[in-house]
Amino acid sequence: MQEAFFTSKQAAEITGCTLRQLQYWREKEVVVPTISDTGTGRSVYYSRSEVMELAIMEYCLGVGLNFEVAAASVKRLKDEGLFKSTDEKAPQRFMLWWDSNKRKLELVEFDLSKAHASLDEGKPVIPMWLDVIYQQLVNKMHS
Amino acid sequence: MQEAFFTSKQAAEITGCTLRQLQYWREKEVVVPTISDTGTGRSVYYSRSEVMELAIMEYCLGVGLNFEVAAASVKRLKDEGLFKSTDEKAPQRFMLWWDSNKRKLELVEFDLSKAHASLDEGKPVIPMWLDVIYQQLVNKMHS
Repeated sequence: MQEAFFTSKQAAEITGCTLRQLQYWREKEVVVPTISDTGTGRSVYYSRSEVMELAIMEYCLGVGLNFEVAAASVKRLKDEGLFKSTDEKAPQRFMLWWDSNKRKLELVEFDLSKAHASLDEGKPVIPMWLDVIYQQLVNKMHS
Repeated sequence: MQEAFFTSKQAAEITGCTLRQLQYWREKEVVVPTISDTGTGRSVYYSRSEVMELAIMEYCLGVGLNFEVAAASVKRLKDEGLFKSTDEKAPQRFMLWWDSNKRKLELVEFDLSKAHASLDEGKPVIPMWLDVIYQQLVNKMHS
């Protein structure tokens, strides 16, 4: 991604989200654009990492997850500063994995044998591979 | 399950759903109780297979899926008449599996190697094991 910032329209196009979704997530403080002046609504710009956040939302909702799980996943990844380091050594592959003790989905680092074991017990696994999602974004920007 | 029919309250308790959910799903025609007279709302009774439908809804929502995916899964299983045959030779294990061509989740028979292959490619798999869900219901009724 060459440009540092993207308008709402650009961000929506690249990620496959609708402008309505972007606005809703802004209101809900799930993905808040860096530059967001009040007024006409034109001065809204998403940084590269925020576009990645949008892409993760879209991915989560696209695989059938509800809003809360999607938003919580983005928040977790954001808190760990992962969107800032897409081309560095930070872990890139995660999964929503069913924690049988807590009886809820947990975002953990992707581990293939752990993932397989989970399926063997009939528990859901939703991979979240940031590198793949990132690559799809880059491809879309060049298409 | 000894009894043939369950009141809303019983059905909610057994499945872990709320009465509000039951009402909403009735309105949306996702799970419609066999006996449902108009009037006081007291004459609502769920059959065994309808209680299983509720349990599947609860399972789907519990693993973070959105309402549409949950409702579509129940509908698919219902259309195939699966809830009527929980103790027979009908397939009992399914999964929501990411169809890369259609780019959406599909309900298919559970196949462990297919499920593993899906994870290997970073695609989600949400098992839906009716026998296990059924067993949990039975356990709850006896606890």
